[in-house]
Amino acid sequence: MSVTTDTRPLDLLADFPAIPAGWAYLDTAATSQKPKPVLDAINRGYGETYATVHRGVYQRSADMTLAFEAARERVARFIGGKPQETVFVRGATEAINLVAACLLENRDSPHFLKRGDRILLSMLEHHSNIVPWQMVAEKVGAHIDVIPLTADQRIDLDAMAAMITPAHKLVALAHVSNVLGSVLDARRATEIAHSVGAKILLDGCQAVPRLPVDVAAIGCDFYVFSGHKLYGPTGIGVLWGRYELLDAMPPWQGGGSMIDRVTFAKATYAPPPGRFEAGTPHIIGVVGLHAAVDYVERIGLDRIHAHETALVRQAREALGQINSVRLFGPEDSAGIVSFAVEGVHPHDVATILDEANVAIRAGHHCAQPLMDALGVPATARASFGVYNGADDIAALVKGIERVTRIFG
Amino acid sequence: MSVTTDTRPLDLLADFPAIPAGWAYLDTAATSQKPKPVLDAINRGYGETYATVHRGVYQRSADMTLAFEAARERVARFIGGKPQETVFVRGATEAINLVAACLLENRDSPHFLKRGDRILLSMLEHHSNIVPWQMVAEKVGAHIDVIPLTADQRIDLDAMAAMITPAHKLVALAHVSNVLGSVLDARRATEIAHSVGAKILLDGCQAVPRLPVDVAAIGCDFYVFSGHKLYGPTGIGVLWGRYELLDAMPPWQGGGSMIDRVTFAKATYAPPPGRFEAGTPHIIGVVGLHAAVDYVERIGLDRIHAHETALVRQAREALGQINSVRLFGPEDSAGIVSFAVEGVHPHDVATILDEANVAIRAGHHCAQPLMDALGVPATARASFGVYNGADDIAALVKGIERVTRIFG
Repeated sequence: MSVTTDTRPLDLLADFPAIPAGWAYLDTAATSQKPKPVLDAINRGYGETYATVHRGVYQRSADMTLAFEAARERVARFIGGKPQETVFVRGATEAINLVAACLLENRDSPHFLKRGDRILLSMLEHHSNIVPWQMVAEKVGAHIDVIPLTADQRIDLDAMAAMITPAHKLVALAHVSNVLGSVLDARRATEIAHSVGAKILLDGCQAVPRLPVDVAAIGCDFYVFSGHKLYGPTGIGVLWGRYELLDAMPPWQGGGSMIDRVTFAKATYAPPPGRFEAGTPHIIGVVGLHAAVDYVERIGLDRIHAHETALVRQAREALGQINSVRLFGPEDSAGIVSFAVEGVHPHDVATILDEANVAIRAGHHCAQPLMDALGVPATARASFGVYNGADDIAALVKGIERVTRIFG
Repeated sequence: MSVTTDTRPLDLLADFPAIPAGWAYLDTAATSQKPKPVLDAINRGYGETYATVHRGVYQRSADMTLAFEAARERVARFIGGKPQETVFVRGATEAINLVAACLLENRDSPHFLKRGDRILLSMLEHHSNIVPWQMVAEKVGAHIDVIPLTADQRIDLDAMAAMITPAHKLVALAHVSNVLGSVLDARRATEIAHSVGAKILLDGCQAVPRLPVDVAAIGCDFYVFSGHKLYGPTGIGVLWGRYELLDAMPPWQGGGSMIDRVTFAKATYAPPPGRFEAGTPHIIGVVGLHAAVDYVERIGLDRIHAHETALVRQAREALGQINSVRLFGPEDSAGIVSFAVEGVHPHDVATILDEANVAIRAGHHCAQPLMDALGVPATARASFGVYNGADDIAALVKGIERVTRIFG
C-alpha cells in the first residue's frame, strides 16, 4: 500500500459521462460509475465484434474467444494470479456461494465440512460473506465463530489468533470493510488461518478498486470481487482460487462448456476454470471488465489509494468538526466513511443530501450484524472513487450542516 | 403459432450494426446479434442513468430501481407470467440448476427427490437440461429416463405418455430443439406430466426468440430462457416459476437482497423473486433485456415465426437438392436447420463457409446424446434471426456447393 498523500484531484471526471456537473456521487462502495473506455469496450463488443465464444468455427467467434481469454489473463495478472485459477462468475456473492457449496458442502470435496467443524468470520462482514456460510453450516451441522473488532473498528487479528483452532476449516474475511473502510492485514490473517490448516477466502469487493492486490504475496486460498464496483459492467465478477483447490472441487452448476463428455449414463467434467463456467458466459461483461482493469491500472492503484485516503482524511476532519456527527471506522479507512448525525435517521440524512445533489447511501449496508455491534440500526455512508474531489467533500459537509440546521 | 407464410424479408438488417454488408450470420441459435435499441438502452444505462437498485435513497437510484422492476414486469408479460414469478438469473443454464438444486436436491423442499424417484428428459436436450438433473439424481439416488424421438425427430409425446409413471417427479424438455428446431407441443407435454403429478420445466431458449410463448396457456410449472439469444445482453436470463412453487423453494445462494434479516444466529429469507436474486443484480443486463423484449414484440412474434419458418423451408428445399446433403429435423423446424455433407466433417464445412462470409455452427451443439442418437459426431447448423433473408440462404447454398466441389 502506498503511503504517499497526494491530495491533488485526479481530474478524471470528464471520463464519466453519467456524472453530470455538480452531482456529488458518493456511493461508489455500492457501485461505481463507468469510464468511457469501459462504455466503448461494451459498445464495440455488442455493436462491432459480437459473437459467441469457445464454440464458433468462424473467424468472428474465434476472435471473440481470443478477446475473452485475453481478458481472463489480464484480470488474473491484475490480482497476481494465473488465468487457469481465474473463474468468471456473476459477482462476489456468487463466487462465495460457489466456494461454500463446492468446497465445503459437497461430500465429493476433500474439504467437505463435517458435523462439529467450524467456520471463522468477522463481525464486519457483508451478508454475502455470512449467509452462504450459514447455509452450509446449517446443512452439515458446522458452527460459525465471529472475530470481534478492535476499538478502532478493524477485524481484531490478535483475537483471531487467540480463538482459531484446528476445528476451523475455513476463514472468510473482508479485505476492506464496505461500511467502515477498515483495511485488513490480509497477509497476517492468512498466516493465522494457515497456522491451523484452515483455508482462507478474502472478499475483495472494496479492495480491488482501492488498493493494489497481489494474491500471491498475500498467500490466500480464494479471492473474490465484483466487476461493477471496479468501474466495470454489472453481472460479472471473479473467483480466484489456488489451482489445486479448484481442481479438487466438484462442479457446481451443470451445463454447456463445463463438461468434457455427456451421455445419459454419465457426464465427465472439464478442468478449471471451465468446470465452473456452465453455460454461455457474460461475454461482454468480461470484455468490459478487461477495459475496467486497464483503466484503473493506467491511473495506478497506488495513486488511487493515495487519492481516496486523502479524501477520507479531508471528509473525516470536516465532518468531525460538526458536533452532532459521529464517525465510524478507523482514521486510515480506504475510501469509505460511515457516520451518524445525532437525532437524525440516516435515511433522512441521505434524503436531504439528495436534494442538494449529493448521493450517499443510508442503511445497514447488508451488514446487519455490524450495525448491531455498532449499536445503530443504520449508518450514513459516503464512499469515494477516482472521479471524486474536494468539491464533493465540500458539498457533503455543506449538506450535513443543512441537515443539522433542519433538525437542530 | 402462426400459420402464415410471409416470405418477404423483414428488412431489419439496418438495425444491427455488428452485421456488415455481405456477412451471412447464421448462428443465431448460439447467440443473436443486437439491435440498436438494445445497444442504446445499454449505453443510456451505463452512460446516463447508472446507479444501483433497491438500496439507494437518492433519486438516481430510485429511478433505476423503477426501471429494473418495470423490466421485470415487461419480461413477465412477454411470456404470460407475473412479475413476482419472474426471477432474473445469468441465463437458462443457471435457471435450470437453480430449480434442480432448490426444488429437488434440497431436503427443505416439499418436492425433495428421494432415492428411487425418477426424472424424465428427452433425447434431444441441451447439456444444460441434462447435466443439472444428472448431478441431482446422482446425489439423491434418483433415476433419469429419456423420451425417444419420432421418425421426423420430434420429442415423441406418445412415447412420453406411455412411459411416464407416478415415480416421475419432474419432466424437463426443450420447447424448441437447439439442434433440430423441432417445436414441442408444450401444452400436451404439460398435460402428460401433470397426469401423474410431475412438475414440468420447459427450456425456452430457442422458443422465446422464435414464436409466441404464453406460460399461462401452456400451464407449465417452470419456464427458462437466456437474454442473449433473444437479441438482448449477455449474462442475463429468466426463470419463471409458478408462485406457490417458488415460494415453497428454499434459497439457493445467500447474500445481500435475498434476506430479510441477518444475525450470526440466523438469517430469514425474502419472498420470491428476491429470495433467488442474491447480490447486486446484472442491472444493465435487465435494462437491455427490456429493450430486447420491446424490440421483438414491436416486430411481432407471429411475424418473426412466419419469417423464420419461410427461411427454413427455403433452406431445406435448396439444400435438399444437393445430393450429398443430409438434412436433420422436421420440415416445420423453427428457424434452425441441421445438416451433414456426406464425406465432409462439419467443421470443414463451417470453415469453408467462413471463407465465403457465411457463419454457421459445427459441432455437437452441447447435445452429445442427440448426436449419438442421430449416429453422427457433429452436425453443421444454420440458424436464423430477424435480420436474415433470402440472400443469406443463397450464400449458404452457394457455400455448400463449393464444399461439395472441393471435397467432390
